Amino acid sequence: MADRVDHIGVAVKSLDEAVATWETLLGKPPDGFEVVEEQQVRVAFFNVGETRIELLEPTSAESALAKSMARRGPGLHHICLGVADTDQESARLEDAGLSLASPPGPGAGGCRISFVHPKSTHGVLLELSS
Amino acid sequence: MADRVDHIGVAVKSLDEAVATWETLLGKPPDGFEVVEEQQVRVAFFNVGETRIELLEPTSAESALAKSMARRGPGLHHICLGVADTDQESARLEDAGLSLASPPGPGAGGCRISFVHPKSTHGVLLELSS
Repeated sequence: MADRVDHIGVAVKSLDEAVATWETLLGKPPDGFEVVEEQQVRVAFFNVGETRIELLEPTSAESALAKSMARRGPGLHHICLGVADTDQESARLEDAGLSLASPPGPGAGGCRISFVHPKSTHGVLLELSS
Repeated sequence: MADRVDHIGVAVKSLDEAVATWETLLGKPPDGFEVVEEQQVRVAFFNVGETRIELLEPTSAESALAKSMARRGPGLHHICLGVADTDQESARLEDAGLSLASPPGPGAGGCRISFVHPKSTHGVLLELSS
């Protein structure tokens, strides 16, 4: 069961421009930057309470993120729920008839993540992380 | 300055169907229901840590939510940051050159809310609440 919203992923065209805007919105500089090679994204994140707001810029036009932005434009991209055990929760959801967009596997920072397919959630790309 | 993500708004076509799905996703029933007449929406919400996930179904085809769904489909719609003082924060953002989609005013549950325009946030509809 989810105990918090771990992060909110926001698709952006220019990380530099988006960081400048969110610095104004949140009144503080980002709490960190990261490059996630396997997902072909550059990330800047801001801690807001127990949740991170992650700004995501594609590093390749072939990335899933770039393809999503080509269809829907920049903006809210996905939310990630913090769970106790990603493998267990993913199996529970599949048993309940939901489809995963990607099965449990390693994520950034030593996390274990999976994605529930938007077709199973009425259009929300939902990540699980533990 | 924002101290938490107050809620995440998710646009849905059928509240009943979306509630059933999110009951499965979160492993619990909704924490409440609400009708917000002035915004022409029915809402079901689930508490997840310090954040609510709000499922929003339009009650009128003329509502801003219905029009947004006609353009972008159902899914993630907006995020709301909890701030100490919505009026003060809104003024600070306008002074910094950002545009509001709606000025500070009364929201549900006695809150005071405003919306920052997506054109000022690279495509994210951002609500402030205090």
